[in-house]
Amino acid sequence: MPSDTNPRSVILTGDRTTGPLHLGHYVGSLRNRVALQHEHEQYLLLADTQALTDNAHDPEKVQRNVVEVTLDYLAVGIDPTISTICVQSALPALAELTLLYLNFVTVARLERNPTIKDEIQARGFGRDIPAGFLCYPVAQAADITGFKATLVPVGEDQMPLIEQTNQIVRRLNRQTGRLVLPEARALIPDIGRLPGVDGKAKMSKSQGNAIPLSATDNEIEDAVHRMYTDPDHLRVSDPGQVEGNIIFVYLDAFDEDREAVADLKSHYRRGGLGDMVLKRRLTSILQALVAPIRESRLSLAKDRDFIMDILQAGAARGRKITEATKLKLMEALGTFRFDGES
Amino acid sequence: MPSDTNPRSVILTGDRTTGPLHLGHYVGSLRNRVALQHEHEQYLLLADTQALTDNAHDPEKVQRNVVEVTLDYLAVGIDPTISTICVQSALPALAELTLLYLNFVTVARLERNPTIKDEIQARGFGRDIPAGFLCYPVAQAADITGFKATLVPVGEDQMPLIEQTNQIVRRLNRQTGRLVLPEARALIPDIGRLPGVDGKAKMSKSQGNAIPLSATDNEIEDAVHRMYTDPDHLRVSDPGQVEGNIIFVYLDAFDEDREAVADLKSHYRRGGLGDMVLKRRLTSILQALVAPIRESRLSLAKDRDFIMDILQAGAARGRKITEATKLKLMEALGTFRFDGES
Repeated sequence: MPSDTNPRSVILTGDRTTGPLHLGHYVGSLRNRVALQHEHEQYLLLADTQALTDNAHDPEKVQRNVVEVTLDYLAVGIDPTISTICVQSALPALAELTLLYLNFVTVARLERNPTIKDEIQARGFGRDIPAGFLCYPVAQAADITGFKATLVPVGEDQMPLIEQTNQIVRRLNRQTGRLVLPEARALIPDIGRLPGVDGKAKMSKSQGNAIPLSATDNEIEDAVHRMYTDPDHLRVSDPGQVEGNIIFVYLDAFDEDREAVADLKSHYRRGGLGDMVLKRRLTSILQALVAPIRESRLSLAKDRDFIMDILQAGAARGRKITEATKLKLMEALGTFRFDGES
Repeated sequence: MPSDTNPRSVILTGDRTTGPLHLGHYVGSLRNRVALQHEHEQYLLLADTQALTDNAHDPEKVQRNVVEVTLDYLAVGIDPTISTICVQSALPALAELTLLYLNFVTVARLERNPTIKDEIQARGFGRDIPAGFLCYPVAQAADITGFKATLVPVGEDQMPLIEQTNQIVRRLNRQTGRLVLPEARALIPDIGRLPGVDGKAKMSKSQGNAIPLSATDNEIEDAVHRMYTDPDHLRVSDPGQVEGNIIFVYLDAFDEDREAVADLKSHYRRGGLGDMVLKRRLTSILQALVAPIRESRLSLAKDRDFIMDILQAGAARGRKITEATKLKLMEALGTFRFDGES
């Protein structure tokens, strides 16, 4: 876990609800969150509204995965009594903040955002970018500031989103003459992104190269079995390449016995260590990791009311906080309000 | 008043709250609204959120004018017991609908919108268009559909905004397989836009060529006195030009004695009718029109609680309707919801 965290920061993190989570999420974020929740005030946003920015044609999928991702959270050890799990669409203040912030950001600035540029390319939008997609960094700024988050765990590639948020924060603080919103700091995980089982840079459900947190023992065995290793390591006795070898990337990520992994690496380099030994080791480590998560998921999934209660309670807590931020900001901007209660 | 109105349509109309209203608003819309409120279900939106799209630097002005415009409405005869006056920022469902709709409109489509193109030019934004400004046609679609309005009084130049709204409506109805939202029809007023007292095409406070609804008798006299007429009509005995003559444009708009106006036009054309006669006539017509509005405004302004009560009640009614539309739409899209009440 990264070490540069102040005591009791407010953390906002979460996931787009487009599919169940997988081992890439586990290594990159879930594991950290389970640890961070004990030291900080942590909010987990189920970003269904953001997921719609490129899934507007399939809102049912987005909604179904609100439940799936919640199951993943609980199964890995997120404790809903200390972390708050919020569905984004249940928090109207975030939509209101988004609309307000859109007035403080130019279209040209959004188009220059490197993260957005990359993602537009990756999705093949061309000129047909949905306006909501172009605007989503502003919606993220609303999410982060709505919870007054000061610490946001993100990958290195998402730094521009934090910078966009802080630009809006500084602009609003300058205009109101008060520190009405805090700036946020990125929390970059120690471990980089987990590659897919096919060796591609990113594990992703849509690429078919992911091991989901609900994977069975057989599925895990199959996935590890299909992993490429060093293509020049033809016989057990040949010296093998460790760098870029996907099995070792996974062992580095999941094998807690660092010393044993170091020994295996030396052995592999000088020859005499077969891929099957490594694959068996990785398989049993992953099976041991996933089995309790999968079982927990299965048993939680049977009690839908329990899940709904957690989401309802999280929505209530999230509403209170984001609504308060909105009102404080509106007041600082010199606007009054009508709550519509009469 | 335009005649092509179905019985009991739902009308959405309103004003950006950037300044008190003037005679241009009276002729172009307020007068119609007073009549329409008896025949239809009419909602008047005080568009403070939209006003921020190009006034984000001055939210206090926007907020102050929420009250000013409300005073204007009441003073001209809008009856808050039959028309509903809603502050836009008090209706979070409109922000939520806006964010949703942004996913169904491309950036390229917004940039092609002729109304937006003109207004971007008029405001000199260049490339520095606030994203909120580019997106405001989508926010208008949220306003119109949020109230399920079927009739929207707009100027001819705003037809593209209605078309944008209906495109979104058709897209959502197609996707949900239901007529979940109604299409809206524009209601173009019989009388075109009132020119400014300086003869410029549009009366506008920022151009300094407007007669506000709070104008005193002297202010009205001065404004009419300064009006240009026919520059070739040097002596009373000269024949004068009626077409494009600002005094006659105003007499057409405000003088209820159509026959007398027709006689004055003939007389002016053949010569022998002085500008001062016309100006005195126009002055007294405008003074007679504005005096009761001004007095009513003054007395209403003294009872701020009464105004706040009207806005609070309007917000409550507006919330109920727009929230219901949002929920109906979300349900049709296949999403569930968390109301955050626990």
